Amino acid sequence: MAHAVSPLAPAAFPALAAIGGMRLATVLTGTRYKGRDDLMFAAFVPGTAVAGVFTSNKMPGVPVDWCRKIVGAGRARGLVVNAGNANVFTGKAGVAACTATARAAADALGCKPAEIFISSTGVIGQVPDGAKLAAATKAAASRLGTSSVEDAARAIMTTDTFAKGAGAEVRIGGKTVRVAGIAKGSGMIAPAMATMLAYVFTDAAVSPAVLRTILKDVAARTFNAITVDGDTSTSDTLLAFATGMAGNKPVAKAGSAEAAALRKAIEAVCLDLAIQIAKDGEGAQKLVRVDVTGAASDAAARTIGMAIANSPLVKTAIAAADANWGRIVMAVGKSGEKADRDKLKVSVGGVTIARKGMPVPGYDEAPVARHMQGRDVHIAVDIGLGKGKARVWTCDLTHAYIDINGSYRS
Amino acid sequence: MAHAVSPLAPAAFPALAAIGGMRLATVLTGTRYKGRDDLMFAAFVPGTAVAGVFTSNKMPGVPVDWCRKIVGAGRARGLVVNAGNANVFTGKAGVAACTATARAAADALGCKPAEIFISSTGVIGQVPDGAKLAAATKAAASRLGTSSVEDAARAIMTTDTFAKGAGAEVRIGGKTVRVAGIAKGSGMIAPAMATMLAYVFTDAAVSPAVLRTILKDVAARTFNAITVDGDTSTSDTLLAFATGMAGNKPVAKAGSAEAAALRKAIEAVCLDLAIQIAKDGEGAQKLVRVDVTGAASDAAARTIGMAIANSPLVKTAIAAADANWGRIVMAVGKSGEKADRDKLKVSVGGVTIARKGMPVPGYDEAPVARHMQGRDVHIAVDIGLGKGKARVWTCDLTHAYIDINGSYRS
Repeated sequence: MAHAVSPLAPAAFPALAAIGGMRLATVLTGTRYKGRDDLMFAAFVPGTAVAGVFTSNKMPGVPVDWCRKIVGAGRARGLVVNAGNANVFTGKAGVAACTATARAAADALGCKPAEIFISSTGVIGQVPDGAKLAAATKAAASRLGTSSVEDAARAIMTTDTFAKGAGAEVRIGGKTVRVAGIAKGSGMIAPAMATMLAYVFTDAAVSPAVLRTILKDVAARTFNAITVDGDTSTSDTLLAFATGMAGNKPVAKAGSAEAAALRKAIEAVCLDLAIQIAKDGEGAQKLVRVDVTGAASDAAARTIGMAIANSPLVKTAIAAADANWGRIVMAVGKSGEKADRDKLKVSVGGVTIARKGMPVPGYDEAPVARHMQGRDVHIAVDIGLGKGKARVWTCDLTHAYIDINGSYRS
Repeated sequence: MAHAVSPLAPAAFPALAAIGGMRLATVLTGTRYKGRDDLMFAAFVPGTAVAGVFTSNKMPGVPVDWCRKIVGAGRARGLVVNAGNANVFTGKAGVAACTATARAAADALGCKPAEIFISSTGVIGQVPDGAKLAAATKAAASRLGTSSVEDAARAIMTTDTFAKGAGAEVRIGGKTVRVAGIAKGSGMIAPAMATMLAYVFTDAAVSPAVLRTILKDVAARTFNAITVDGDTSTSDTLLAFATGMAGNKPVAKAGSAEAAALRKAIEAVCLDLAIQIAKDGEGAQKLVRVDVTGAASDAAARTIGMAIANSPLVKTAIAAADANWGRIVMAVGKSGEKADRDKLKVSVGGVTIARKGMPVPGYDEAPVARHMQGRDVHIAVDIGLGKGKARVWTCDLTHAYIDINGSYRS
């Protein structure tokens, strides 16, 4: 069942510079989808650094286990992602399918299977056809270099209504470094981590250790700051690959200016992708930004922000453009974090609605109602207790979420 | 906007024996609703014992603050509940409205305002009309004894699609003791505690201390074991009143056989009411029971059960009668509690679907699909790690939830 493209989708996939040292191919596996490629293969030059952040779900998919096991070595030659089957809760047959895919890619590239990263996304609990995945990987290997980043972004989609890509350029040590990212995900999106699958490719020369530090830091403020439904996928994966082809002197110190410059570029790409995922939240009609200030700590602010962003009552009110701010108060109160009714301040669209334990005298709902009719809704709460702050994003909860999730598997 | 009666509603309100020492009246306040009473007044004989359990939300309503302040004394003469305005986040004007209501009731009964319990339910953040509430309370006082328990249950409804009542009888010390309960609530229902408003009336003679112990114990297994949307109301209140008119020797020891008998009767009433609330979950088409066994502890089992019961993905799959058990696995994994993929067992409708990290070989989905077409869905997960267990209830997530919550305030 296909769904209409999110009204929040960007007008077009961004123009992205090629990443030196990376070749892409996409193919149709024949395992689930028809008429669209559903497997992407990225090959990297020897020496490519890799780092990853994975789901906190205690029932991780087979590919997540695989990536966790090999990511510590810090080097990658390939990435294979298939859409339609998550390879989660599939026992030994699932492990065999994952291993077969990695072996097919490694054979094609002349490297070890432990240098091939694997992701799978789709239905849980169905054993994937390992022979078909391996054959498709082999077919893709023969066509490396024929697909674009946009093709890759399209091949990893499931319920996504648009392909998600973002890019950045930064000067490091006198050289231009390019960063390109793709992501997929629109449901089962929650911290930590939020994205189902996201990949960042850069031609920067950087050590695996520095790349790891950057990625962990960036994930907290980007993919782990969005939520669609509070559900945490068993397959969430964020991987960054750095080919080193930009020619900059390798970034080897986490605290250096060069690392900061690279972090900034990667963060820009990740934030862009994360917001695109929130914009493609299943059934989303509005993008919602929640700013929490004055909390006891940054962690408390984040918990409060997520309590607001995950509240079905807040999200249905936003869908209906109903300035029912009492539900925001409710969500702050249920978060479990320190809060005081008489110190709380609630604003929507820049208009302060409530403070000192009551609605602002003479509060005029008209401008707030107008703001809520729009595509971008801004909620701000000040807890009035400390200096903790956080910003999170979500979308509204609409009928389409139920349509999509009632029909996805059938 | 009126909504169709839940398909899970009981055929009729139960026949309940009168509670000696209690008189009821309901009236129309003119503050929100038309054509239906929206305030109920219960008057109790002097010496009535009272105990209460209140919301864990940090932004409690004015009436919750009021009840918390006076409940410690253990004695009640009256209860006034109004529907349509929650009196939450309403500042000093809200406190004045609550106090005026209590004073009107106390004047009518010739007691202190601190012996009058108040609850309010409805929209958050609108200052209630204290003069109208006090006048309505006075009018109700002049008609005490003219309304039934069912009338009272109807007067406290908001988005509820049916009135909720339950009763029990038990022999204590050679005397028949009667218990009658009413409740309202269908959204913003989550632990702890789940019910928006619930009241238990009994003619038992029991000390406030024993009543308090019983109520706290019972709440954990009943109202705190249901969830509709994971949102915790600012007004949740459970109060028990015991008039002592049954003539039994007062129950004064928490560990006694008499206390156990009374606890059993009160628990039966509370469980019945709690399940009725889940059945009236906004938009509910199916009642869902989740049994968790084999967890590391009872608390862990409860957290896992609530993770399943609150998962929008699980709940939309149930609405669609889709045996998408992978989402149950996901929810167990995201709960944060100890779990091992290879020890987990998942059953739906008594059929084991997955164990040892994979689907049961030869698993036949047909009987599970048939079970999910019905009104009662049973999910069971065995974590395989310990002896912790818990049972929780929820409902499915349907379009009607979004309709109801997008339109409630407007």
